[in-house]
Amino acid sequence: MTVELAPLLPPPAQKPVTSAIAVYCGSCIGTQSAFSAAAVSLGRALAGADRTLVYGGGSNGIMGVVSGEVLINGGKVIGVLPRSMVAGGGEGEKNDSPKIFLDEILVDSMHERKIEMATRVDGFIGLPGGFGTFEEVLEVTTWTQLGIHDKPVALLNVLSFWEPLRALVKGSINAGFIKPQHEQLIIFVDGPEDHSEHENFDWGKAALEAL
Amino acid sequence: MTVELAPLLPPPAQKPVTSAIAVYCGSCIGTQSAFSAAAVSLGRALAGADRTLVYGGGSNGIMGVVSGEVLINGGKVIGVLPRSMVAGGGEGEKNDSPKIFLDEILVDSMHERKIEMATRVDGFIGLPGGFGTFEEVLEVTTWTQLGIHDKPVALLNVLSFWEPLRALVKGSINAGFIKPQHEQLIIFVDGPEDHSEHENFDWGKAALEAL
Ligand SMILES: [Mg+2]
Repeated sequence: MTVELAPLLPPPAQKPVTSAIAVYCGSCIGTQSAFSAAAVSLGRALAGADRTLVYGGGSNGIMGVVSGEVLINGGKVIGVLPRSMVAGGGEGEKNDSPKIFLDEILVDSMHERKIEMATRVDGFIGLPGGFGTFEEVLEVTTWTQLGIHDKPVALLNVLSFWEPLRALVKGSINAGFIKPQHEQLIIFVDGPEDHSEHENFDWGKAALEAL
Repeated sequence: MTVELAPLLPPPAQKPVTSAIAVYCGSCIGTQSAFSAAAVSLGRALAGADRTLVYGGGSNGIMGVVSGEVLINGGKVIGVLPRSMVAGGGEGEKNDSPKIFLDEILVDSMHERKIEMATRVDGFIGLPGGFGTFEEVLEVTTWTQLGIHDKPVALLNVLSFWEPLRALVKGSINAGFIKPQHEQLIIFVDGPEDHSEHENFDWGKAALEAL
């Protein structure tokens, strides 16, 4: 399948940034403080390990928490945005967001954004999110399965948010649709067994160790 | 978000086919005969209701069962394939597949294939599958959520295959990342409570009623 699908991912115009990570997550803040705490932890870990955050460029919700925390801690953030979104005034950005270190890359479509993000990074991390986050995580996983790239995907299983996806994948393996060796394409970072410890757990450190 | 994201789905070159349905499913046959039985049932129902099947064009696995059954029952099938895949000899097609009524639409990339399929249909049906199927189902759902289109997605919950996805969506609503009113964006067609009846259940009829 690799050769046939190659047109999906043209060579990037620039070489990938060394040690960059794409983060997928919700544009809402979520109902549990453990979610934003995990986002803070991830932002700190990325900055501390000098790993560039590549993301969709928004400042709302969990997305804004991760990017803000990277910047506050002296890290590097690259936002990849469709031109039409920037021309239209962004995604409801807050003007007081700390975006002075943000490098922006403008692309022509939502699909180009995904390709640009994927080609610029060495790995993907998913925090809790909605349909869009599910789709992004599963798309880069599908690309790995097809041999289009070979980059790890780690999901931060905060409050067991991603547990049903693990069950879906296991069920599909049992049903014969996913090969058993492809179960490992998604790494679930589980954190402590006791959910009450999830708010203070260092998800960022655990995520970077897992990749 | 609608206006900003419009470039994702340009107007189709041709008007959508009336009453066409896109089907997403696995390219393997699966370990349980209930899966292929559901595919047979769906193919018959599409042909019987004169609803055109729009799909990825392969003849392997569950995909081949659905398309073959539509054709055998006098229905119409449109396969949407990237040119590179056709030039490369297809996806390991069987030469004896009953493809004489198959209309082929050639596109330039995997991404164009998805757009072409989505714009040509009135709704989407998902049978059991793997990562690629998960991604396709969640992508069209995301497009509905963003207001890019307004087309129903029904998943055939054969042997409760899709149950974990329902749990993932419910969990994300509770977590505050998916709006409660968006739970209905994916319709789960559950079939009989007793799994032993799933092999003979008329999934196709139930799916068309649900859309
Ligand atoms: Mg996608």
